[in-house]
Amino acid sequence: MAKEEFRVTPYDVKGTIDYERLIREFGVQHITEEQLQRLKKYTKELHHLLRRKLFFAQRDLTFALDQYDKNNLFLYTGCGPSGPIHMGHAVIWEFTRWLQEKLNIDLWFQFTDDEKFLYKDLSYEEVQKWLHENMLDVIALGFNPKKTHFLIDTQHADLLYPEAIKVAKKITFSTIKSAFGFTNKNNIGSIFYTAMQAVPAFLPSVLKKKEMACLIPHAIDQDVHFKISRAVLPKLGHFKPASIQSKFLPSLIGMQEGKLSSSEGKAIYLTDDPKTVATKIKNYAFSGGRDTVKEHREKGGNPDVDISYQWLTFLEEDDKKLRKIYQDYKSGALLSGELKQILIDKLNTFLKMHQKKREQASKKVDAFIYSSKHS
Amino acid sequence: MAKEEFRVTPYDVKGTIDYERLIREFGVQHITEEQLQRLKKYTKELHHLLRRKLFFAQRDLTFALDQYDKNNLFLYTGCGPSGPIHMGHAVIWEFTRWLQEKLNIDLWFQFTDDEKFLYKDLSYEEVQKWLHENMLDVIALGFNPKKTHFLIDTQHADLLYPEAIKVAKKITFSTIKSAFGFTNKNNIGSIFYTAMQAVPAFLPSVLKKKEMACLIPHAIDQDVHFKISRAVLPKLGHFKPASIQSKFLPSLIGMQEGKLSSSEGKAIYLTDDPKTVATKIKNYAFSGGRDTVKEHREKGGNPDVDISYQWLTFLEEDDKKLRKIYQDYKSGALLSGELKQILIDKLNTFLKMHQKKREQASKKVDAFIYSSKHS
Repeated sequence: MAKEEFRVTPYDVKGTIDYERLIREFGVQHITEEQLQRLKKYTKELHHLLRRKLFFAQRDLTFALDQYDKNNLFLYTGCGPSGPIHMGHAVIWEFTRWLQEKLNIDLWFQFTDDEKFLYKDLSYEEVQKWLHENMLDVIALGFNPKKTHFLIDTQHADLLYPEAIKVAKKITFSTIKSAFGFTNKNNIGSIFYTAMQAVPAFLPSVLKKKEMACLIPHAIDQDVHFKISRAVLPKLGHFKPASIQSKFLPSLIGMQEGKLSSSEGKAIYLTDDPKTVATKIKNYAFSGGRDTVKEHREKGGNPDVDISYQWLTFLEEDDKKLRKIYQDYKSGALLSGELKQILIDKLNTFLKMHQKKREQASKKVDAFIYSSKHS
Repeated sequence: MAKEEFRVTPYDVKGTIDYERLIREFGVQHITEEQLQRLKKYTKELHHLLRRKLFFAQRDLTFALDQYDKNNLFLYTGCGPSGPIHMGHAVIWEFTRWLQEKLNIDLWFQFTDDEKFLYKDLSYEEVQKWLHENMLDVIALGFNPKKTHFLIDTQHADLLYPEAIKVAKKITFSTIKSAFGFTNKNNIGSIFYTAMQAVPAFLPSVLKKKEMACLIPHAIDQDVHFKISRAVLPKLGHFKPASIQSKFLPSLIGMQEGKLSSSEGKAIYLTDDPKTVATKIKNYAFSGGRDTVKEHREKGGNPDVDISYQWLTFLEEDDKKLRKIYQDYKSGALLSGELKQILIDKLNTFLKMHQKKREQASKKVDAFIYSSKHS
């Protein structure tokens, strides 16, 4: 695929992604060995997504860790409720949960129901339904309710909107137009929206009347929102938000398809039953294997394009196990069907536990939704 | 002044205004004799601004009165807090107060602190200061606290923003660009803002879960906001808001200056003391009188361009008194200084009473601010 033929914006990810080129074009930095070692001091072990450089890029991570040393750091991430949660989301949030647990700091979790209503062909009621469903999944992932604060854009607008207009006053339509590729046909809510996404990066500072630093774990397609925030927030007397950015869990149908996305309808959802998972992986997960078993045994498969293997790099925590799978697949000892079965089992083990926790999540929602009375 | 040389938008009013041309260009209607007679049935007497056709234009007024017959109408007006309240505002709101009293219906009063922050070179804190000051003036004008509900855009964003995004989704930047003359340099908050101004026209219907009609008394420069609302609200299942529109209280310095505005610094404010009022009127109020007393006595003055006379058409309720002033000025019996003194006395009588009531207003603010607990 030619050099130009990939695209990464918050609203569109397409093509085989050249992450080194993204780093240069977005103006973000690699996560350095020094930063990893410093993180390890706090977290004891490094999360496998860090070890494998699937979280690979950052802005101001060192500054964030300096602030952490001063007991002055919080985390911020978000969820756009427009459909069921798929594994691409779960991977980022599981990492975020791990980071919160190890650092033992607050996490502000924004549910951008306004964004999804404004950008998608969904009714307000449909988005509210997904908001509720998505909150259940986030809760089931095991975040600490004492340190995790859900901000729902429409329900917390009394907190968010007054701060969002301070951001919005510093951003022209020209900026938005070039940053997001918008046109005059965009609706005026979608044009305003990025100001709402900027707010949780400094709202805790406003609420606590003390300037705090913010670290945002996110997939790299969201970078432009925070690039704009970083330009604006210092003008309002706040720190620039720091970020730690991941690669995308690839689409089932192949590395050339950008990222896993609900819009193609072939994602693995956190609510899928075991049979559905097996069927989807068997039918859709692009294989790096050979045409015949004989040929595969002789020449071996290609794990670098095999989606089942690629997914296991996100899901299998054990480095040794993963390395063995890589070698066995490459040598031909492991067949494509067997590799798929490893992924299916891994997914279904995770989903079984998740779905069990999800059944208990409904009664916990209130404890997670931020209320000024709690703080 | 040539035909083209006036301009009327919510953000800019300039030149000698041809109101007949405005009616055609905005696509609004005259208030008909039939509508006036119908209003009179409810109000017993007609307000002098209606008798004199200073409230002169409308959209869907008959529909609003039909809904009033079904006990299904409320009023909506607003205040943009960016400076002290001047007589131009007071005239509209006094009329609104009268209409509310006579019809005995709810009034939703929006304070657009977001708008003023986004459009003006004012800090957030300055706007909040003016918000408080302006609320005192509105309260002192004598609205019924039981039927008047203040909505403050930043404080009631939890109610307004979720509805505003439903409006915003139906409005493109193209629409805003041509309606308000915006460019790509406009900030993204100002682009979104008209959606916030649309909400009070249907929020009571949302709160009461019953579709109600809305009548908006306003100066005609605000028409474009509601023209956009009228296009959008039916798509959301709401009635088009009706309106009743006034001419502008002219600028002190002359009819060619558009409307009275704080930006020129020569307005009469509701907080002015008697001496300040006298000085401003004597120094700035454009006179339709002759160069010398002798010439004035012989040829008479021109009340049609005399700002003191024009202001009295807004302020002097007594038709006979006003007619006599007109005739005496035209004949030369009344000198310019004497006419100015009539206006000064009229203003200072009103302001003395107003300022006395204003001192008591602070403790009433809470009773006016809408709270879902009240309703």
